[in-house]
Amino acid sequence: MEWTRESRYKKYSEWDAETLLKLQAQATASKYQMSYHIRPQSGLLNDPNGFSYFNDEYHVFYQSYPFGAVHGLKSWVHLTSPDLVHWKNLGLAINADTKYDSHGAYSGSARVIDDKLFLMYTGNHRSKEWVRYPYQIGAIMDKDNNITKLDKPMIEPVDHITEHFRDPQLLKHRDEYFVILGAQDAETKTGKISLFRSKDLKNWQDLGYLDFTEEEMGYMVECPNLVFVDDQPVLIFCPQGLDKKVADYENIYPNMYIVGSDIRLDKAKFNTNQKALLNLDDGFDVYATQAFNAPNGKAYAISWIGLPDISYPTDSENWANCLSQVKELSIVDGELYQRPVPAMASLREEGTLVRSEEVFDGQQIVHSAASKHYELKLDLAAGQNGKLFLAANKDLSQGIEINFSTADDAFLTVDRSKAGIPFAEDYGTTRTIALPANKQLSLDIFVDGSVCEIFVNNGRHTLTLRFFAPDGNNKIAFTSDKKLQYTGTYWNMKNI
Amino acid sequence: MEWTRESRYKKYSEWDAETLLKLQAQATASKYQMSYHIRPQSGLLNDPNGFSYFNDEYHVFYQSYPFGAVHGLKSWVHLTSPDLVHWKNLGLAINADTKYDSHGAYSGSARVIDDKLFLMYTGNHRSKEWVRYPYQIGAIMDKDNNITKLDKPMIEPVDHITEHFRDPQLLKHRDEYFVILGAQDAETKTGKISLFRSKDLKNWQDLGYLDFTEEEMGYMVECPNLVFVDDQPVLIFCPQGLDKKVADYENIYPNMYIVGSDIRLDKAKFNTNQKALLNLDDGFDVYATQAFNAPNGKAYAISWIGLPDISYPTDSENWANCLSQVKELSIVDGELYQRPVPAMASLREEGTLVRSEEVFDGQQIVHSAASKHYELKLDLAAGQNGKLFLAANKDLSQGIEINFSTADDAFLTVDRSKAGIPFAEDYGTTRTIALPANKQLSLDIFVDGSVCEIFVNNGRHTLTLRFFAPDGNNKIAFTSDKKLQYTGTYWNMKNI
Repeated sequence: MEWTRESRYKKYSEWDAETLLKLQAQATASKYQMSYHIRPQSGLLNDPNGFSYFNDEYHVFYQSYPFGAVHGLKSWVHLTSPDLVHWKNLGLAINADTKYDSHGAYSGSARVIDDKLFLMYTGNHRSKEWVRYPYQIGAIMDKDNNITKLDKPMIEPVDHITEHFRDPQLLKHRDEYFVILGAQDAETKTGKISLFRSKDLKNWQDLGYLDFTEEEMGYMVECPNLVFVDDQPVLIFCPQGLDKKVADYENIYPNMYIVGSDIRLDKAKFNTNQKALLNLDDGFDVYATQAFNAPNGKAYAISWIGLPDISYPTDSENWANCLSQVKELSIVDGELYQRPVPAMASLREEGTLVRSEEVFDGQQIVHSAASKHYELKLDLAAGQNGKLFLAANKDLSQGIEINFSTADDAFLTVDRSKAGIPFAEDYGTTRTIALPANKQLSLDIFVDGSVCEIFVNNGRHTLTLRFFAPDGNNKIAFTSDKKLQYTGTYWNMKNI
Repeated sequence: MEWTRESRYKKYSEWDAETLLKLQAQATASKYQMSYHIRPQSGLLNDPNGFSYFNDEYHVFYQSYPFGAVHGLKSWVHLTSPDLVHWKNLGLAINADTKYDSHGAYSGSARVIDDKLFLMYTGNHRSKEWVRYPYQIGAIMDKDNNITKLDKPMIEPVDHITEHFRDPQLLKHRDEYFVILGAQDAETKTGKISLFRSKDLKNWQDLGYLDFTEEEMGYMVECPNLVFVDDQPVLIFCPQGLDKKVADYENIYPNMYIVGSDIRLDKAKFNTNQKALLNLDDGFDVYATQAFNAPNGKAYAISWIGLPDISYPTDSENWANCLSQVKELSIVDGELYQRPVPAMASLREEGTLVRSEEVFDGQQIVHSAASKHYELKLDLAAGQNGKLFLAANKDLSQGIEINFSTADDAFLTVDRSKAGIPFAEDYGTTRTIALPANKQLSLDIFVDGSVCEIFVNNGRHTLTLRFFAPDGNNKIAFTSDKKLQYTGTYWNMKNI
């Protein structure tokens, strides 16, 4: 169908239920579907929202448009989990049903306050003339997961910010609440992180913009997110239109981070010794990552696997995107690490040991017929060069190609140009990271339908990508000039 | 809401999607919800349909009305499984969208024919004057799970059967196809099993009624199902209005079976040495069981846990019922046994050994705070009398009470009168089976939200019940005049 402004913003009550049931069946039946990642029941999923721990379980919500693979009228869908791996989809949680969120219940955060989960999000309202008004809205969830929106917006539009003013993260420091928001400055039309302060969650003081960089952050910053990792403040955000001289990135819009030395919210100051913004994920498809500090002292992050303004092959199946697995954050020797959470291991079926195979027909075969849903851990000895193929055909002319060296000029390149249906090729088909020279390389690779998450060297890097392989491309194999030395384990993964 | 004829039969396309999303969220959020049984995504579930093995996986469908806990306009929902335990819900599969099934795609069966899954079901059509016309419809499912209905009904209404003519099971014997159907004889208004024969699936010969009993089968027989168990034909069916002199039962309508000595479909003759019809399940809530012979040589059965014309407490939450776990059928010493399939064990978390505890406060505690989703296996020594309480409160004044004797007059009684919200009390609150005198009693108990399935003595009996316990009633304990001797294992069960 042709998507018009009218059809995208049609109320859910104006869609018919048969259409929805068919869209749900279509999404579920897709051969590209994920089985251990959070995925849309139908239509489009984008940002994770309200990632939190409350009432003895983890909560996450996602931005949902259930009627197609387009950014239409957004709502929040709610999921809960005991372990950050097994998620229960509780369905529609925040619908666009008030004046203030009439054109979408956009992204936001959650925080436990007084035995309730306080949700704060952006209500998108448009006038008849289609002028956008962003309202920052509060809502309270009780222990039965009932959500009540506050009558009035917590923060109204402000003069010094354009209509691009969204994605509130509610923070607390001592006796005060703070909110950081993505913003576009009205005068300069540049990307900013807006900051507000309140003692009572009602009266909010505009503290201007957070001072976190001297560089210009393009024309907009989305999804600012502050989290403490091993006691250091880490600012995660998505600058749009960022000059590539400021920071290196290849995706249409990057999801970046800065590790801070200290933060003074009351002074609107985030200090850092980090020289440049860094990509949170070195792959192709991570955006809008949301992290929070859990009561167990750990920092957890979850990402949208998907990017704004990119068409994905499943658009033709009327669904798109998924969330990443949850990643535990830590700082080791000043570097941010992202690792799978321990409960991911509970998804493993019985493992198969992987060892250096004899070279046959130029290949060392790891698995001749892998499932579509697996984890593969590999340790590759130092001083080698080769290629690892995932989701490959017999002669390895198709597949995800992971080119690596563990010798002097150590690197790893993921090439998805021959992995299946092409998409997003304007933003390149390879991603490369540098590796420490002459060191063993450790890979922890998660494949789930059409998602691949690669954890490099125990979480020092992550590379995330979507791929859409032809049926039967299920070989895992190495090629190299000479026999490669490696060991590892392969597990089929259970559904969540 | 008030359900009218008009609202029950409103097309799915005339319902709005927001209502459906809210109903799905409401069903999922229910504290009575099952986590390892097939349950409705929203609304009402009833009969299992099309239970089969095709394209390297198991298939089952269920009768669905997604808009409330009423018998409205029915469709088929499709699920697949590799192991008969982990089911993937593929959603709406057969909708009521032709003239012949305009008022419901009612129950039916599935059979692999020529590399396709052939589905046969009853289309319910009503005229403007609300006169019902049952059509027996064919549909073909390919390996991509696409279903195409045949243009014309396979079997039209016949003069000697009233409007109550449904639930076709498609069978094959040598080169011929047969169909058995539930029927009400037009002249006598009694329940019958109708039989048809065809060589080509197109031209059907009416063979009259299957001769399987000399007794009168009430006013209607539903869901006739023929399966071979250890080479013996077993006829499963649901007589309605059956005289209790013919067979003993307590549910509003029983689900009964006869083990046959031989069957001649071409002669419309089912011979048996069994003296009386027997209840397939000795509990409260099993109906419409469907069984089939799988290519691995085994016979599997799955039941609707729910009964016609009974109100269940979750009706007020707009959803109702679930399917049973799959039961493997066998005949041991002439008796029909039903056992959990082996893959059920894959749902077990780490087990906890259960042993005779010291009597304290008159109780022997098995588990002081069980989960809502568990399996409990128990072996009780011969020569004892006692009570086992499930889903009980602290002093055992509330709970499912299992009264047993393993002494001379051995028996087991399940009493749900104090288990929680009362329902179906007109049909009694206890069910009793006789046990062999002075023998060890073995129980395999599965609790899942508001469902309890009890396998007695390795499947010699099953007792299935719904119960709706108050929050916090999660104790498992014995009471007895003296210390009971038992051993066993308790497992929390994973979600499917």
